[in-house]
Amino acid sequence: MIGVMAKLKVKDGQGDAFEAVAKLLVEAVNANEPGNLMYRLYKAEEPNTYIFMERYQDEAALEAHRKSPHYGEHGKAMGAYLDGRPEVSIMPEVA
Amino acid sequence: MIGVMAKLKVKDGQGDAFEAVAKLLVEAVNANEPGNLMYRLYKAEEPNTYIFMERYQDEAALEAHRKSPHYGEHGKAMGAYLDGRPEVSIMPEVA
Repeated sequence: MIGVMAKLKVKDGQGDAFEAVAKLLVEAVNANEPGNLMYRLYKAEEPNTYIFMERYQDEAALEAHRKSPHYGEHGKAMGAYLDGRPEVSIMPEVA
Repeated sequence: MIGVMAKLKVKDGQGDAFEAVAKLLVEAVNANEPGNLMYRLYKAEEPNTYIFMERYQDEAALEAHRKSPHYGEHGKAMGAYLDGRPEVSIMPEVA
């Protein structure tokens, strides 16, 4: 199993627009990726900051996510609202 | 839904011992907390650093976790291996 944590900073005043697109991505991942066991978005305590918490069955499932049409489409749309690159941690599951 | 992310720094050379206890906690949470939807431990890229990713149905489920005998027991045992206090983020789920 693989865990992914992605920290995203959103431009001032763009939170609602970002959330609207991100919700589409979360829905699409949960509906279309059998190898994904968790894909959820959280509002962090820091201003304008969001955290994706993700869990994949294996490397192939993570790769399938990256190559999926929905990630390509919604990921790109989300990019318009971001203030800098996301910080992404890809981590082996210990337990 | 509530997401929790806990970042733990472990003392040098104590990783294996920490993981052994943490595994007991992960097993106990997954077996005993109906309001918990995810409780998993990951090895972060930074040295001696671990991340718990957690998801709870609601505030009551998080409270039940904190008051559970298994959290009390294994949480205390894990404390012996930690290098400083865990950094815990409690976050509302957006999607």
